[in-house]
Amino acid sequence: MIPRYSRPDMVTIWSPETKFRIWFEIEAHACDALAAIGVIPKESAAAVWKARDVTFDVARIDEIEAVTKHDVIAFLTHLAEHIGAEEARFVHQGMTSSDVLDTTFNLQLVRATDLLLVGLDRVLAALKSRAFEHKNTVRIGRSHGIHAEPTTMGLTFARFYAEMDRNRTRLMTARAEIATGAISGAVGTFANIDPSVEEHVCAQLGLTPEPISTQVIPRDRHAMYFATLGVIASSIENIAIEIRHMQRTEVLEAEEFFSPGQKGSSAMPHKRNPVLSENLTGLARLVRMSVIPALENVALWHERDISHSSVERAIGPDTTITLDFALHRLGGLVEKLVVYPENCLKNMNQFKGLVMSQRVLLALTQAGVSREDSYRLVQRNAMKVWEHGADFKTELLGDPEVTAALTPAQIEEKFDIGYHTKHVDTIFKRVFGA
Amino acid sequence: MIPRYSRPDMVTIWSPETKFRIWFEIEAHACDALAAIGVIPKESAAAVWKARDVTFDVARIDEIEAVTKHDVIAFLTHLAEHIGAEEARFVHQGMTSSDVLDTTFNLQLVRATDLLLVGLDRVLAALKSRAFEHKNTVRIGRSHGIHAEPTTMGLTFARFYAEMDRNRTRLMTARAEIATGAISGAVGTFANIDPSVEEHVCAQLGLTPEPISTQVIPRDRHAMYFATLGVIASSIENIAIEIRHMQRTEVLEAEEFFSPGQKGSSAMPHKRNPVLSENLTGLARLVRMSVIPALENVALWHERDISHSSVERAIGPDTTITLDFALHRLGGLVEKLVVYPENCLKNMNQFKGLVMSQRVLLALTQAGVSREDSYRLVQRNAMKVWEHGADFKTELLGDPEVTAALTPAQIEEKFDIGYHTKHVDTIFKRVFGA
Amino acid sequence: MIPRYSRPDMVTIWSPETKFRIWFEIEAHACDALAAIGVIPKESAAAVWKARDVTFDVARIDEIEAVTKHDVIAFLTHLAEHIGAEEARFVHQGMTSSDVLDTTFNLQLVRATDLLLVGLDRVLAALKSRAFEHKNTVRIGRSHGIHAEPTTMGLTFARFYAEMDRNRTRLMTARAEIATGAISGAVGTFANIDPSVEEHVCAQLGLTPEPISTQVIPRDRHAMYFATLGVIASSIENIAIEIRHMQRTEVLEAEEFFSPGQKGSSAMPHKRNPVLSENLTGLARLVRMSVIPALENVALWHERDISHSSVERAIGPDTTITLDFALHRLGGLVEKLVVYPENCLKNMNQFKGLVMSQRVLLALTQAGVSREDSYRLVQRNAMKVWEHGADFKTELLGDPEVTAALTPAQIEEKFDIGYHTKHVDTIFKRVFGA
Amino acid sequence: MIPRYSRPDMVTIWSPETKFRIWFEIEAHACDALAAIGVIPKESAAAVWKARDVTFDVARIDEIEAVTKHDVIAFLTHLAEHIGAEEARFVHQGMTSSDVLDTTFNLQLVRATDLLLVGLDRVLAALKSRAFEHKNTVRIGRSHGIHAEPTTMGLTFARFYAEMDRNRTRLMTARAEIATGAISGAVGTFANIDPSVEEHVCAQLGLTPEPISTQVIPRDRHAMYFATLGVIASSIENIAIEIRHMQRTEVLEAEEFFSPGQKGSSAMPHKRNPVLSENLTGLARLVRMSVIPALENVALWHERDISHSSVERAIGPDTTITLDFALHRLGGLVEKLVVYPENCLKNMNQFKGLVMSQRVLLALTQAGVSREDSYRLVQRNAMKVWEHGADFKTELLGDPEVTAALTPAQIEEKFDIGYHTKHVDTIFKRVFGA
Repeated sequence: MIPRYSRPDMVTIWSPETKFRIWFEIEAHACDALAAIGVIPKESAAAVWKARDVTFDVARIDEIEAVTKHDVIAFLTHLAEHIGAEEARFVHQGMTSSDVLDTTFNLQLVRATDLLLVGLDRVLAALKSRAFEHKNTVRIGRSHGIHAEPTTMGLTFARFYAEMDRNRTRLMTARAEIATGAISGAVGTFANIDPSVEEHVCAQLGLTPEPISTQVIPRDRHAMYFATLGVIASSIENIAIEIRHMQRTEVLEAEEFFSPGQKGSSAMPHKRNPVLSENLTGLARLVRMSVIPALENVALWHERDISHSSVERAIGPDTTITLDFALHRLGGLVEKLVVYPENCLKNMNQFKGLVMSQRVLLALTQAGVSREDSYRLVQRNAMKVWEHGADFKTELLGDPEVTAALTPAQIEEKFDIGYHTKHVDTIFKRVFGA
Repeated sequence: MIPRYSRPDMVTIWSPETKFRIWFEIEAHACDALAAIGVIPKESAAAVWKARDVTFDVARIDEIEAVTKHDVIAFLTHLAEHIGAEEARFVHQGMTSSDVLDTTFNLQLVRATDLLLVGLDRVLAALKSRAFEHKNTVRIGRSHGIHAEPTTMGLTFARFYAEMDRNRTRLMTARAEIATGAISGAVGTFANIDPSVEEHVCAQLGLTPEPISTQVIPRDRHAMYFATLGVIASSIENIAIEIRHMQRTEVLEAEEFFSPGQKGSSAMPHKRNPVLSENLTGLARLVRMSVIPALENVALWHERDISHSSVERAIGPDTTITLDFALHRLGGLVEKLVVYPENCLKNMNQFKGLVMSQRVLLALTQAGVSREDSYRLVQRNAMKVWEHGADFKTELLGDPEVTAALTPAQIEEKFDIGYHTKHVDTIFKRVFGA
Repeated sequence: MIPRYSRPDMVTIWSPETKFRIWFEIEAHACDALAAIGVIPKESAAAVWKARDVTFDVARIDEIEAVTKHDVIAFLTHLAEHIGAEEARFVHQGMTSSDVLDTTFNLQLVRATDLLLVGLDRVLAALKSRAFEHKNTVRIGRSHGIHAEPTTMGLTFARFYAEMDRNRTRLMTARAEIATGAISGAVGTFANIDPSVEEHVCAQLGLTPEPISTQVIPRDRHAMYFATLGVIASSIENIAIEIRHMQRTEVLEAEEFFSPGQKGSSAMPHKRNPVLSENLTGLARLVRMSVIPALENVALWHERDISHSSVERAIGPDTTITLDFALHRLGGLVEKLVVYPENCLKNMNQFKGLVMSQRVLLALTQAGVSREDSYRLVQRNAMKVWEHGADFKTELLGDPEVTAALTPAQIEEKFDIGYHTKHVDTIFKRVFGA
Repeated sequence: MIPRYSRPDMVTIWSPETKFRIWFEIEAHACDALAAIGVIPKESAAAVWKARDVTFDVARIDEIEAVTKHDVIAFLTHLAEHIGAEEARFVHQGMTSSDVLDTTFNLQLVRATDLLLVGLDRVLAALKSRAFEHKNTVRIGRSHGIHAEPTTMGLTFARFYAEMDRNRTRLMTARAEIATGAISGAVGTFANIDPSVEEHVCAQLGLTPEPISTQVIPRDRHAMYFATLGVIASSIENIAIEIRHMQRTEVLEAEEFFSPGQKGSSAMPHKRNPVLSENLTGLARLVRMSVIPALENVALWHERDISHSSVERAIGPDTTITLDFALHRLGGLVEKLVVYPENCLKNMNQFKGLVMSQRVLLALTQAGVSREDSYRLVQRNAMKVWEHGADFKTELLGDPEVTAALTPAQIEEKFDIGYHTKHVDTIFKRVFGA
């Protein structure tokens, strides 16, 4: 976790204070359930809630753990200091550390996901707004980095919207993957703890009981979760790369908002660099790097080993914090992105009329010229534009083989930009609904 | 693709013959739709279907491509050799290569997924069958590779079933992710091709029209798809590792089926090695290695670049072929796995009675002994078993501090194995339904 | 392995014929060594060489393996068909399959590396040649995709040369990593085979005896090897990305060679796409994807397990074949890259004089203006160029605060391009030597 | 960075205080060099050293950066607060931020590497010591997790020593990779700063001047560096997996040291879990996860972009801190590992005499029995041991086909364990030298 790439809300979810608070709640709810089926005295269960408003002392717990070398035992020992040794006697009855740890980890991931959804929604709102704003801002479409045919800036935003909307669906699915809890005792057989305890605790925490756990919650769930975050990160990179391309000096169709007082370079004062989108490119790599270890965590030995634990201590917070930050950075970036419609037009017209080449090709074909000949005719005139800066329409009008097939008016008509934007509404309807 | 790790059905999906067949169908269906809206003559569309039963000549197409350096143009040229240059004139009208390539790739992935589902179902059936067969085969549960408390072999199979069942759901979701097609023309604006063509072609092929494409279908879909295969592979590894552990000489609770004539080692004739599950461990790595490049493929430049293409030429076939093979290898392995219930028991009883330590701990606590004292008492007697091979129950019965809290009958009762298996039915109901 | 991304020389190294040939040589050399120390009869050793010129029948060996399910035993059985069962009796004496398999794999990697070095040398030669050719072709340097200060095209090639030269050194180191052989018998103790056999076989094959093997050669070597290939692939991507940027329509400082007859797009005949460098970007991902499984292969169980084997069957050939192809594709691309010096100049002058801003900043500072004031003065005039297309020098000459510090002649002098290229020779000397 | 997996020495290297200290030194040394060639006044250079003993105020610098949004400018502004605006005027003259940032990052990596070497040396010393201690502790060698032939515990330690020794060499090579510095100014042309400044600064810091930088130091160096750490991590995993196997209940040939007061399980007091080696398995994944982003960082746009920066802010500290911690954890683990030679023997003799099967096979072959017959004879008797617990030697002595070829004395001799350990000295000499 790097402070400069962190938002406090997400950091809080992963604080020791939050963790111990959840541990407490799990233990207290479990005591309630144990009391309900008569395993422990009702008064003992009630007594645990005496610590309801306690902020647990992280330093003290660490101190105890330094001796016991076991974090849950350390916490329970500290809890007893609050509620009394006698009352604490029944806490954690029949449970195993993993019941607490795994349920907590999943609850933290659920909460983290809810924050990620807020960030994703901010990105979606920004993309939608900018899409409608620039629905008809004509811009050259590019394949291979080479001018192809016209499109609009609105379609660019709309495709990112559609992609991020898919990511929203994926994230909801991923949330369901990890919204489970387990209180199944040693090796998950419920030998020492009744399944009703698990049901009660999970219900209180908004989780689903894990159908079959083995002391640990199975890690294929977490693998799927982090893989999903990796996909979202890749989409962030996708948008970031587009913006970086837009902003490069020779293109300059859009630019990151540059606040007064901001300095682009210690050496070159004229520079305005797309540092946010470059940063997002790097942050995407950081989010993605959790995918492989999460996949490697799936294969645990027998009922459980603890190799996954250190991995999750890192990627749990780091990945969600980084992604959360990245989503908000991206949201702000899109919201404030400065678009230059006039530069879009200027770029499109760099090779005069050339972007209409395919239309002419089709027109020739439909006028009865063979595909091969049409291709040859178009390419011959296109090359003059490309190499000598000629005007494509003028060249076509002066090529007798072309004019033998198409009238000047027909040729003229091929250069109407409306031809390329006529389905923008159709596509917007598909993406944003009616 | 390695022949020894390939099944013909899956290989066929990725053959050039299949690919060209799909290309043909896309072009032919597109011609139908173009004819329907009057863009091309109905007879021309009909003429394309003359090639309906043609098996395209891969070598000839390659030959043409060697000149044009463009695969789709090469195919269209070859197609014209079958249906006549005149009739072929309207084929591919307004389309771009990616319309064909991307829709084909997705259709191949859909078909591949349907085969993967067959494999997954085989694995699920095998796991379920073995789970019920060994529902009550008692076995020691292990955490950290160390004996913990009893469980059953059936629960082991049941948890793998539950995991693979989640993978089935994930795979269905992943199938939906890539079951889209796009016929949207250059840079995806439908300028040169009506959206109705896309609708018709997709409907004929069982695909959904991509809401917004940009000449290419967005690659976040494929990233999610391959990430899902990576999770499934990790679950395969999880099962494989369990079997490898079961089979190791000192454990031998189960063994891969060893066919007559099979030789385990050129040097050591007595050896029977878990080579299938070791192989599955490696295959899992191979499937997983496609995840990162698939994620890296998401960020394409502007409306499209072709960097993803070479990656997909490799991971499309290789990953699905390897996973398909692995699923069937795993299915067969589970179906024929030789389980040794007597060894399970022998291992469980290696440290006489020690696996019941937690029960005793709980009993002491409930009998009024403080948690700390209970822990001390149990550990003191447990250590004698661990270090000197003593019998745990005997030691407890001889420990006055223990017998001060528990009667001999109470101690005796703690060593009933039924205590540990009493919720197996509950768990099976959760996993397999009523 | 994808035929279109493969060169025959490298494919041959990984053919079954080559593999069996190496197996034969190992067995034959081992027999010589065994005969030399009297373990087997000299005539038996000599008899093995009867198969010296045999091309082994792959289909026949596969047939035998289908029964024995063991590849080395299948080969030995087939070998006996050539040299006679009696003479074959002593072949493989005291050896284990891994002695043959691992030594063979390493030898194949060594040979593959030697081919990779040829490809790397081709790239180096091309980069050096183009570097000197364009040593003084002035070009704008860019940071963040934004114009910064002038550099030369030759420096661009020179830095790629330096990077690839480092890769050459790394590849030599990686070659040494895997240039070991092991003939150490079961679990590597030499119990059944004298160390002198290993020494002889390795010497004959140009390998170093593995100091301590455990039936297998340790896989940290291969992890390092494939990691090195991954770094080389990343450098290929680095060059490819630069070329893709150079070729984008708005930049066009260089272009991939476009052969007559080549078609850029089925739809847009004027397009010339950087398809080779885009393809290299994808191939780099394919090479890189072997790194993680190679790292995962290091941790084998006890003296050996076979989980690494399926991984290596794939990544051994695939990765070296792809990298070999990529190096030659890159070599050819650089050799024939069409550079447009006039476009380089045109781009540099897009914002008139602005690239000299830092020089002016420094001059102001040295003339006694405070850093903050200098920055403000430069930025104020720079913004006029950026936003209104003004000429930077003209603006400076008209700014009284500037002219209060610098004379017109001093300002004029700051716009001499030679200032930026004065150390090109120094850098070339560092990179290419005297 | 996770506090529980961090050692203070390594954390200090990555503190803001250390970073600013290095920034200061670079600027101050650069001023000296600039003064030496007359670019700035000698007094100004001398004045900078007034801040020689300053501990820079991190909070103040952060405060300034909040306005300037540029870290180096913020630092320089703060530096001016210490040495006076007038004297500070010449600081950073002709330099660019990357000159400072990249040189600093490399210097931090060099120092981190020196610490890693200390950790590696601790591991090497421990492995060597334990290897000699258990040079002749006989232990069964296992392939595929199945008993193979005898080896010794010393050989196990020796092979890890050899592997880690290779890692030491690799780490030294990796150190050289990143031990470069660059003070080459904007886009690396030395236009604004003389190469002699770079030489002086690098010499003072113990770095080599980067032969050709482009404002940034090329990232193939860092890719190679982190890839090397990934290999080392994989070797740590390799050792960890071995220890985890050794400690599993059924094997128990060694055990992690279990300190008094340590609790293995909150539920099962008898448990002693290999938590350190399980933890190392996870830490290895964390170190390895930096490899892919480091490879992805190589391809920067043109002369530089800043996408690598956020990645390195994370993986620079996190990876070196985690690896440093892991090496010391591993060192301590090996130093104190409790080996159980008697259990090693017990395990080896589990299948009475079976581990000698290959020797018998060889003896039969050498006595003139055909390979196929020998194999059949050995396997027939081996199966009786495997399946019915028979004694291998007894069975052989009672098999007339066997005794027809070998005398009882010859058979007897095959069961001498010294046969398997006779080359331990040879191997130790290879690994540890004379």
